[in-house]
Amino acid sequence: MKRSDRLVAMTNYLVEHPSQLVSLPFFSAEFDSAKSSISEDLAIINQNLQNLGIGYLESVSGAAGGVKYIPEYSQENSERFVDELCEELEDPNRLLPGGYLYMSDILGEPSKVRNIGRLFASAFASAEIDVVVTVATKGIPLAYAVASFLNVPVVIVRRDPKVTEGSTVSINYVSGSSRKIQTMVLSKRSLQEGSRVCIIDDFMKAGGTVNGMKDLMEEFRAEVAAIGVLAEAEDEDEERVITEYTSLIQITNVDVKNRQIEVHRGNLFLQE
Amino acid sequence: MKRSDRLVAMTNYLVEHPSQLVSLPFFSAEFDSAKSSISEDLAIINQNLQNLGIGYLESVSGAAGGVKYIPEYSQENSERFVDELCEELEDPNRLLPGGYLYMSDILGEPSKVRNIGRLFASAFASAEIDVVVTVATKGIPLAYAVASFLNVPVVIVRRDPKVTEGSTVSINYVSGSSRKIQTMVLSKRSLQEGSRVCIIDDFMKAGGTVNGMKDLMEEFRAEVAAIGVLAEAEDEDEERVITEYTSLIQITNVDVKNRQIEVHRGNLFLQE
Repeated sequence: MKRSDRLVAMTNYLVEHPSQLVSLPFFSAEFDSAKSSISEDLAIINQNLQNLGIGYLESVSGAAGGVKYIPEYSQENSERFVDELCEELEDPNRLLPGGYLYMSDILGEPSKVRNIGRLFASAFASAEIDVVVTVATKGIPLAYAVASFLNVPVVIVRRDPKVTEGSTVSINYVSGSSRKIQTMVLSKRSLQEGSRVCIIDDFMKAGGTVNGMKDLMEEFRAEVAAIGVLAEAEDEDEERVITEYTSLIQITNVDVKNRQIEVHRGNLFLQE
Repeated sequence: MKRSDRLVAMTNYLVEHPSQLVSLPFFSAEFDSAKSSISEDLAIINQNLQNLGIGYLESVSGAAGGVKYIPEYSQENSERFVDELCEELEDPNRLLPGGYLYMSDILGEPSKVRNIGRLFASAFASAEIDVVVTVATKGIPLAYAVASFLNVPVVIVRRDPKVTEGSTVSINYVSGSSRKIQTMVLSKRSLQEGSRVCIIDDFMKAGGTVNGMKDLMEEFRAEVAAIGVLAEAEDEDEERVITEYTSLIQITNVDVKNRQIEVHRGNLFLQE
């Protein structure tokens, strides 16, 4: 196979299999080429992924070695994407009763959702995540986007048990914003003991829901290694119960009466 | 920029932007190269995408022309993927009360979900879909996977209205399996009149839920251009109310007592 053909096929393969170890013999056999040629191809691909600001190839040496595409969104790409998102969200027509913000249209765009996933996956690349956990409904697409870049499965916590889930574990928690007692359930067979989980959600005010998920994870003896929320907003009535988390955007000074709102970069950009 | 570098960057760009028209001048400017070189690169990429059985580049001529990556999963790739899925699902430990099948683990694997999306997107490539519609919860990841390949937004129908959705339209429908009257709601601002929609769901027995979604689409004066369900199963008590749909797998001869089940390729493979 010619170099130009290999470059197309290998780029496609690596981009489609992020965070997954690929052995050189696999590429060598797949494209009927010498290992030395494959190594040169990988060097070219690595350089270009870095130039594009979308990650790099990690070499793993040894008998079980190979390369792994680590998606890493550059600071420049991240800032540009989040700044555009902030601008879009600052539209006062998005204000809903209770100081909530209409974001369903943005969460409905697969390309934006994919970029949000890329940002969280970059941030949590070294956290050794085994599984991404979210609660139905709006966090689901974000959780899949993160998980696809980290190459780990997604587990969905539900508000109501369903026959197609088998036996479940449930907990009660107090929702910060409505102050109602709510229930969360998770199928028993869905999560292994000792898993390192990353909790993903779309929106956090006081953090009652995320806290509920943390409690539920304890029931499964899982370890919460990272928490990512797309948007965080202040809750004027209640202090936040979650302190360690990563947000992409912050919503402040929501003034429903005067139809004003401010949207800024989240704490992801403070940490760096 | 050298050809080898362009091939990596352009392959990545096209694979990340399926079903999206990209102008030659864009690539020309982005990679500081003559249009003739870009055209040659595109021919190489096109040939390799076809060899890999994952699609092709469509040329659109004229002033507003360019190329579009059309993801099209080859028959061979599709059959191999679905046959593996069938085998995995035939495990009798997956049987749940009522003849349901535990599929949450498979629906939790982003790479499988992505392939399912690729298959539906291939099948519906010429249906001119404007938006993918699904109902919470399990269909959501599948809907995003399909939408990302078709480059269209996703709209999620909920079972319960939520404050963060704004005003909604709701309908009642009879669920085939439980025969209970249920409700579906969709935010008013989420769907434009006249949209051509593709309905995606994970599981269909009698088809009550899909039928409810069809009714809801009528309220929005949207046109249902395609219906895709991952798995279809017979309902011994009720005839199917939906006749035109595409399924990837068919579940038959479910025998909960003797813990037996058969899983075959769905009607997607009959149509071809």
